[in-house]
Amino acid sequence: MKDDKGLLIVLSGPAGVGKGTVCGALREKDTNIEYSVSATTRSPRPGEEHGVNYFFHSKEEFEKMIEEGRLLEWAQYVDNYYGTPLDYVKETIDRGKDIILEIEVQGAEKVKERYPEGTFIFLMPPSLAELRNRIVGRGTETSELIDKRMTVAKNEIDMMQMYDYVVENDEIDKAVSRIRSIVTAEHCKQERLIEKYKELAEVE
Amino acid sequence: MKDDKGLLIVLSGPAGVGKGTVCGALREKDTNIEYSVSATTRSPRPGEEHGVNYFFHSKEEFEKMIEEGRLLEWAQYVDNYYGTPLDYVKETIDRGKDIILEIEVQGAEKVKERYPEGTFIFLMPPSLAELRNRIVGRGTETSELIDKRMTVAKNEIDMMQMYDYVVENDEIDKAVSRIRSIVTAEHCKQERLIEKYKELAEVE
Repeated sequence: MKDDKGLLIVLSGPAGVGKGTVCGALREKDTNIEYSVSATTRSPRPGEEHGVNYFFHSKEEFEKMIEEGRLLEWAQYVDNYYGTPLDYVKETIDRGKDIILEIEVQGAEKVKERYPEGTFIFLMPPSLAELRNRIVGRGTETSELIDKRMTVAKNEIDMMQMYDYVVENDEIDKAVSRIRSIVTAEHCKQERLIEKYKELAEVE
Repeated sequence: MKDDKGLLIVLSGPAGVGKGTVCGALREKDTNIEYSVSATTRSPRPGEEHGVNYFFHSKEEFEKMIEEGRLLEWAQYVDNYYGTPLDYVKETIDRGKDIILEIEVQGAEKVKERYPEGTFIFLMPPSLAELRNRIVGRGTETSELIDKRMTVAKNEIDMMQMYDYVVENDEIDKAVSRIRSIVTAEHCKQERLIEKYKELAEVE
């Protein structure tokens, strides 16, 4: 049994944590999860297809999408816009398919505002995971290095707050397996299932 | 990385749903989960060991445990008491080990009162899962049978409300795999991990 609606899974984390690599490995393993296709104003590169790699739009079209609130989030890099089309995400979810969005932390914050019922996963660098061992370790770290690590840790903890789950990217396979477990668990959540059964049994 | 505290996992569901079978299969697959040992006033059977099969107590000892609030839940069947020792559960969790408690719904309700931070899993009979298909099916069901199913469904939905997760017991292996996913996901929950990191990084 499965609830009827898909999940919006938002995978984010600090720059360089390996979001793309983990997402790629997940895509290979789990064919039940769809991948969000971004909208952009940049020109297609050879071989890129509209609706597969990106939704390609003119600057005017994109700005109209922004105005009409048809983007879950968007950002401008150099001269081009990039964003996540809300319609595409909603259609996928309504079809009962899970969709994953791999995105920078600033984008994830915007998605959280517009779609708080999403499943927000923070991919954590092993450096933070190793924090404890190193700090409580053999006292071989210089205090300068410890201070530096503390600052990094503090920033990452601040970022973590809005997420539902924290997944350590120590090994890609382990990270992928944890994410798949989270998706399974989310589909077993009582709140998601009971609503369906209430409808079916017509009880209040 | 793992949070330091173990989980109390409470597996319950309607009589006859297969809690014991699923729990037994989980025990074979997952050696990281410990199984709660019950306290009882019944006499040990040949081969049964104190602290392994049960904690065997006299009636007086058991009643003292009840008075002192040292049982997570307890019940009386015929002439004997049965219950879950709170100390054993707490010690296991504090050691960072997950512990699973397989229990009737009435017992699960009592555990929820005393330990609401547990992970409560409702094992659902396939009959309820099949409700939809049958009801919206080919109209081959008599209305009496549909009414009967509806009553059962209504009761089961009422029971479900206090649980965190609902797992269908369609196939034992699938049910076990879902429970293991839930345990993994619970360990990745942001609230559990962030507290640990805040302590480590000494930020507030």
